[in-house]
Amino acid sequence: MDLLPSPLALPFPAMPDIAGVTLRVARARYKNWDRCDLTYAELADGTVLAGVFTKNVCCSTEVEMGREQVKRGKARALVVNAGNSNAFTGYRGREAVEQIMAQVAGHLGCEPADVLVSSTGVIGVPLPKDKAREGVANALSGPPCSWEDAAITIGTTDTFAKGATVSAMIGDTRVTLNGIIKGSGMIAPDMATMLGYIFTDAAVEPGFLQQCLSAANERTYSCITVDSDTSTSDTVLAFATGKAGNAPLASSDSPGADAFMAAMEDICRQLAHLVVRDGEGAQKFISVAVQGATSDDSARRIGLSIANSPLVKTAIAGGDANWGRVVMAVGKAGEPADRDKLSIAFGGIWAAKSGLPLPDYDEAPVAKHLQGQEIDITVDIGLGDGRATVWTCDLTHGYIAINADYRS
Amino acid sequence: MDLLPSPLALPFPAMPDIAGVTLRVARARYKNWDRCDLTYAELADGTVLAGVFTKNVCCSTEVEMGREQVKRGKARALVVNAGNSNAFTGYRGREAVEQIMAQVAGHLGCEPADVLVSSTGVIGVPLPKDKAREGVANALSGPPCSWEDAAITIGTTDTFAKGATVSAMIGDTRVTLNGIIKGSGMIAPDMATMLGYIFTDAAVEPGFLQQCLSAANERTYSCITVDSDTSTSDTVLAFATGKAGNAPLASSDSPGADAFMAAMEDICRQLAHLVVRDGEGAQKFISVAVQGATSDDSARRIGLSIANSPLVKTAIAGGDANWGRVVMAVGKAGEPADRDKLSIAFGGIWAAKSGLPLPDYDEAPVAKHLQGQEIDITVDIGLGDGRATVWTCDLTHGYIAINADYRS
Repeated sequence: MDLLPSPLALPFPAMPDIAGVTLRVARARYKNWDRCDLTYAELADGTVLAGVFTKNVCCSTEVEMGREQVKRGKARALVVNAGNSNAFTGYRGREAVEQIMAQVAGHLGCEPADVLVSSTGVIGVPLPKDKAREGVANALSGPPCSWEDAAITIGTTDTFAKGATVSAMIGDTRVTLNGIIKGSGMIAPDMATMLGYIFTDAAVEPGFLQQCLSAANERTYSCITVDSDTSTSDTVLAFATGKAGNAPLASSDSPGADAFMAAMEDICRQLAHLVVRDGEGAQKFISVAVQGATSDDSARRIGLSIANSPLVKTAIAGGDANWGRVVMAVGKAGEPADRDKLSIAFGGIWAAKSGLPLPDYDEAPVAKHLQGQEIDITVDIGLGDGRATVWTCDLTHGYIAINADYRS
Repeated sequence: MDLLPSPLALPFPAMPDIAGVTLRVARARYKNWDRCDLTYAELADGTVLAGVFTKNVCCSTEVEMGREQVKRGKARALVVNAGNSNAFTGYRGREAVEQIMAQVAGHLGCEPADVLVSSTGVIGVPLPKDKAREGVANALSGPPCSWEDAAITIGTTDTFAKGATVSAMIGDTRVTLNGIIKGSGMIAPDMATMLGYIFTDAAVEPGFLQQCLSAANERTYSCITVDSDTSTSDTVLAFATGKAGNAPLASSDSPGADAFMAAMEDICRQLAHLVVRDGEGAQKFISVAVQGATSDDSARRIGLSIANSPLVKTAIAGGDANWGRVVMAVGKAGEPADRDKLSIAFGGIWAAKSGLPLPDYDEAPVAKHLQGQEIDITVDIGLGDGRATVWTCDLTHGYIAINADYRS
């Protein structure tokens, strides 16, 4: 099954080099395919590491080890395997990861723990050690590649390559952040994981890099959903080589820290949106803005309840301004809400206010908005100041076709 | 859009009379259709009432009032409106319900609070009072009807009429329980609510009737899911006329109480299964049995995480024994689980044990099981004694067609 590019695809941006980062790709042939499926990023000595990981308790070895590596706060290399997630593979999966770490560490003359590994693809099949060994060897000896090549190679059934770049001024020094991400475009069942990598030349201390990434994560990756299913391997890593030469950022009080935090959130939001734009079967990009909740966290939970509702998502797919389903999704979220204070708008036009349909509600402009590719839903809970925006895509026949009609 | 009957449909059973219950149906014409859409049940003086209701905080007026009526513990009549849920309609919706209650109370010479009202259908449109008045008048003056007629009339877009009957011995007295239910077959969007009604001739005190219904609910209605969306109007009511003449059941210590509790759970399970069998687009009936969890409640939550996972449901639709997706769904449930103690079986055949795929796993008999209409998934968490079984259906193109392709 070959999928056409998502109708919501964006072109790959022009991305500058990041000093201290060299990318290479190679064929490990984890599946019976003729494409590069192993991505290698070599990082300058002194590169600082941060990371956020899936909360799925059945997580992969790569996630378990990554959590420990993030505590050390430094990295020299990243290896990403596409086609096999190595999840639910017990000690044999762990051996394969340790082999990759040792092989790269031997080449670079670093500690094995300085080598990060991610894997995405089928669950329950141990990553084949012989293929991994040959793939890593090919990558280590191959020529450098472009950001787009790396973005393509980490992908599995993504329908387009996803990358973003932003910059920020720290004092007089411009620092750059490049990011690539893979999402949940699926051709064969079993493949679906969000893996994202952000590389910056900024000099940042590990604790503050983690603080920036964690804060951005709360408002970006944690605010997107395609189908409510949380992968066992979701991972976002940030690497800071320090080669830009700025005065190192140690905390939010450091000069330029605000600009860097904003840039980190910007690139994370761009990358997160790209994942939604490549959601399985997606035809529409949906923003759900919740205001008036009792807290920001409550607003986010209500937003996700709406964004995960199959009935809301199918209504949007059908161009139906079905605000009754939004009421239902607010009410089932398990968060404080009062039916008689609830207001709902599509495309900025209020359909219901304070628990009642508006008597002069004109569905025509709303119907026109719903014909577009970018759908805005606004919900005012009417109880407090909490607000959040979450993003999702619609639920279409494409989702069923990708996940039910074809077997792995 | 006319839907064919679900492939999982069961024939309507032969149902005996229940002394003290008279059913009538009538046309209120809540929608532009020529069918009976108002169901009326007249109940003998002294009928005892119990009920369980949706936890959706944006619930309908009918649910709010029903909760209060259940506290009184008695009922003389039930009116069910089909085609309009009257949810999210503010004071105007409440006026319509109060009008129905007063109209029936005037006819019977009872308190308005003795008249239960349920409504199902479109959200956000106040129930039209003139249509309700005429419909109730027609019902009050019409001839009695069959259980099947009533089951058809409470339905909206259900593809088959759903009823069940069981009996139990209390001392030397046989008591009968009849139930009808409507589910989530949807033709037009906006309609999806589970409404269930159980009528028995047993003599039961209100507190114990509620205890029986609540206990059964925990193991039946609360263990089914079609699409994870919780209606604003879900309601199950139980009415006990006392006409069988048994020694009244006052508590679980009363002679025959065990038999009655078992009969209540039996009929509730049958009715709940019928709702799943008429789930939107359902092609397969899926039982998810979870054992080895840290508690029964934890097992139920893990089961629902599996049963609500779009990736699990589409895998079953595609006949794919994709146990990796089951691992994912266990891990995201937010309940205690240990990947390396987890075991998964389809159709009684273990695919993975203690965190590893079985080396001699033969997929052929599993694939054959998955070709059938009744699918069994067993998950052993390996941590404790908690167990639960939940039921769902697969996620197919039919669900998308019903909810996205056609507008209300």
